[in-house]
Amino acid sequence: MNGADSLADTLLLNGIDVCFANPGTSEMHFVAALDRKPSMRCVLGLFEGVVTGAADGYARMADRPAATLLHLGPGLANGLANLHNARRAGTPMVNVVGDHASYHLVHDAPLQSDIEGLARPMSHWVHTSQNADAVSRDAATAIEVARTAPGQIATLILPADAAWSETNAAIAVAKVPEVPVVGECAIAAAAAALRNGKRTLILLAGMTLRAGALETASRIAQATGARLLTQQANGRMQRGAGRVALERVFFRIDAAVADLREVQQVILVGAKAPVGFFAYPGKPGSMLPEGCAVLTLSQPGEDGPEALERVADALSIGRDVRPILSSGERLPVPDGALTPVAIAQAVAALMPEGAIVVDESVTSGFGFFTPTHQAAPHDFLQLTGGAIGMGLPATAGAAIACPGRKVIGLQADGSGMYTVQALWTHAREKLDIVTIIYANRSYAILRDELKGVGAGEPGANARSMLDLDRPDLDWVHMAKGMGVEAGRATNAREFVNLLTAAIRGNGPFLIEAVI
Amino acid sequence: MNGADSLADTLLLNGIDVCFANPGTSEMHFVAALDRKPSMRCVLGLFEGVVTGAADGYARMADRPAATLLHLGPGLANGLANLHNARRAGTPMVNVVGDHASYHLVHDAPLQSDIEGLARPMSHWVHTSQNADAVSRDAATAIEVARTAPGQIATLILPADAAWSETNAAIAVAKVPEVPVVGECAIAAAAAALRNGKRTLILLAGMTLRAGALETASRIAQATGARLLTQQANGRMQRGAGRVALERVFFRIDAAVADLREVQQVILVGAKAPVGFFAYPGKPGSMLPEGCAVLTLSQPGEDGPEALERVADALSIGRDVRPILSSGERLPVPDGALTPVAIAQAVAALMPEGAIVVDESVTSGFGFFTPTHQAAPHDFLQLTGGAIGMGLPATAGAAIACPGRKVIGLQADGSGMYTVQALWTHAREKLDIVTIIYANRSYAILRDELKGVGAGEPGANARSMLDLDRPDLDWVHMAKGMGVEAGRATNAREFVNLLTAAIRGNGPFLIEAVI
Repeated sequence: MNGADSLADTLLLNGIDVCFANPGTSEMHFVAALDRKPSMRCVLGLFEGVVTGAADGYARMADRPAATLLHLGPGLANGLANLHNARRAGTPMVNVVGDHASYHLVHDAPLQSDIEGLARPMSHWVHTSQNADAVSRDAATAIEVARTAPGQIATLILPADAAWSETNAAIAVAKVPEVPVVGECAIAAAAAALRNGKRTLILLAGMTLRAGALETASRIAQATGARLLTQQANGRMQRGAGRVALERVFFRIDAAVADLREVQQVILVGAKAPVGFFAYPGKPGSMLPEGCAVLTLSQPGEDGPEALERVADALSIGRDVRPILSSGERLPVPDGALTPVAIAQAVAALMPEGAIVVDESVTSGFGFFTPTHQAAPHDFLQLTGGAIGMGLPATAGAAIACPGRKVIGLQADGSGMYTVQALWTHAREKLDIVTIIYANRSYAILRDELKGVGAGEPGANARSMLDLDRPDLDWVHMAKGMGVEAGRATNAREFVNLLTAAIRGNGPFLIEAVI
Repeated sequence: MNGADSLADTLLLNGIDVCFANPGTSEMHFVAALDRKPSMRCVLGLFEGVVTGAADGYARMADRPAATLLHLGPGLANGLANLHNARRAGTPMVNVVGDHASYHLVHDAPLQSDIEGLARPMSHWVHTSQNADAVSRDAATAIEVARTAPGQIATLILPADAAWSETNAAIAVAKVPEVPVVGECAIAAAAAALRNGKRTLILLAGMTLRAGALETASRIAQATGARLLTQQANGRMQRGAGRVALERVFFRIDAAVADLREVQQVILVGAKAPVGFFAYPGKPGSMLPEGCAVLTLSQPGEDGPEALERVADALSIGRDVRPILSSGERLPVPDGALTPVAIAQAVAALMPEGAIVVDESVTSGFGFFTPTHQAAPHDFLQLTGGAIGMGLPATAGAAIACPGRKVIGLQADGSGMYTVQALWTHAREKLDIVTIIYANRSYAILRDELKGVGAGEPGANARSMLDLDRPDLDWVHMAKGMGVEAGRATNAREFVNLLTAAIRGNGPFLIEAVI
């Protein structure tokens, strides 16, 4: 076999059987190898941001990595923004980036660039295979790195001659790294803190946002009076009826600081201490009050759910202390004007059990959270790194990871345009995705921010950079152009009707919600 | 004034009055500053690949840099592929990338990344302004770097606090770097070589592809029997009726090697010695025959047109030696089936004088060159770095640089999808662009390449990665969705009718040519 076959076999042997791809000439031997492996599912994205964003959504739901296939430095560069989001989410991913044959680099051909340099800022591990014999071992290392908790970005660069040369090297088995448990000191310190009478915030993230761990956290909160919160944005959380209703740290610095001003100590469980998304003149960077103590129960790569159980045991919290779970009482469907709140109410009322909600609604989605505590149980995936353009691709990846579950994309219009090509992948793969476009026809968040810097009302130049009008985007036309059925709603009733039909149907549908 | 005002004033004082932009919160003070400068034209791209590709097209036609405005590391990352093309074209460009306030970096906020690390592979110069007082001086340096021949990529990182802090620093004037002339030795060596009786190829690039320098080169070729060629891809060349008909090095390695096998010496004039776009097993990397001597008359950053004049003088080539110019005899418009050749004939017949042709037609455009030697005089801009997604943005930039000139985009469908958002900028700015989509519904070049690696006919996995069907892209719908009028042609007559109307009209139009 050649190095390309060896790579494909290594991926498959180690449980990676989905490859999101946009190949080029330097990857043709790998394409030919994948063509010989019918058990590998190859999914084309018409732009690399689709490829990496889909791999992110896939791994968040599958709890294991997908591979990506990217063409040289520019192909990787196009995928970097969604690698940024994935690394912020703690997503496992194995990127395969083709390179010129090693002996061709002396020529500085037109597509040549510093691939390792491009990969490093968004990868936990970057390596170039030196020859075909090394490929399987390198790929196994990449898989181990990717699977290291909480999930990491591994980028393997495959020179064309390493792909096409023959090798007899054995297919390497990747070790599955164990998730380290938290040390006794951290457990004891957290338990002691929870008994010291201070106003305590437990800040949850990572695997502690799954339903079971949330129940443990809720029982601890019941028993100790601590408050539970999670980060403003998370890779994945389980919520809805019958689950713990967890609120998030506010996005806006003023609101967050006001909300947290009484907190005397914070216990981090896989979370980072909350900081401002941006800096603002005269405002603090940390959202915590001065003098607030910060304890770490578990690092992002440690076993947070197990640590919560041990804290509950250390505090002798009995099984009689029950978690507080959301009721399943459904809200009525909305009527009247179509607003972000009406959209939230409609989704809350109509969402089927086991739905996966991918949220890149930015400002329009701030009101989504509250009414959906009572929605049917669902997974909720967010934009973790702030690099817009993750939503439409991530819905594709989530749908591929979880056939049979309805995927609902909450998509701001400005952000949606970043990787609009993903709609074609929705159609190509016949994915069961409902995309809701919040068509406010502006970068609304930036209009707020411009006011925030004291610039007052925007003039011609600012409007030209912040508004998406002149002309308005027509999402129904764009979706149909990429093979996705679509409809437009201008009031709540139209929206409810379209959403009802889309949820009943099976396959991609887009609703342009003019708000 | 604050640092942001200081930056805007420095750009304007030094002749940069177009800013292609996609800002975010960390750039809001710069947006507010631009809002106070009505003489700056701010052009929004709905994705950063549009922003940098437009700045590339602009500078190629304006012969001076535009500024770009990009949001943090991910915004820059999204623009890198077209920076790669721009650096390969020798395009001058000044990128302004916002960063968090310097004191906020300690918090590792969600959008934080290694911006300098991301910028370096695609920039000739990267610098972070340390404070508001340094901004103007840094910006002037960036402009000088950008203007250094043949044109360079300068990336200035502007921390938010450097933008919002007050400064009294004077607005700095950028030196305009002189283009170095070629030394006497190189002139003498080239002249001697042209007299030594060997079969000689003069390979032209850069500024020697403008009409005047091409005439000098043609006179030298007439007088010495040397052959003229240019690189396979160039940033800009002037061609058409009344100009020198210059052929290009073939794209495919076998064809290029066969074409050049008799060459005994090459004289490079701003060009690089021709190499394979990719490596192939058992095929050479260089396109030149073994033993072929390579002389450099001028480096890419030197004054090639002046060097050609001096070589002509050194060879005592009189004014009686005339350049060979293309006739203006027009081809008839085609009829029958719609093929890439028919499209070339139609464009050749109908193109107005002074048109700007931006070519990202990839395989479909291989036949475009020959019939258009006789077309009306036009500028021809190519994909120089092989990073697809440059075409639609570059047409926008060219149209903004040259109001009153018709811009014609030759666009492969697969490549067009990479930065399809550019169509909205065509509409927003009411640009006089005709986009021709070669809708072959596949990555046709890769189907060729797959055969080239001996993989035979593609199977299911390879087809899923190389074909753009299931569903077909509907470009007419997509264009209308972004506010661009569009029509579909399925035979040559329909195409001619649509192109005639589009050229007569004034404003963006897209033709989906189903080939």
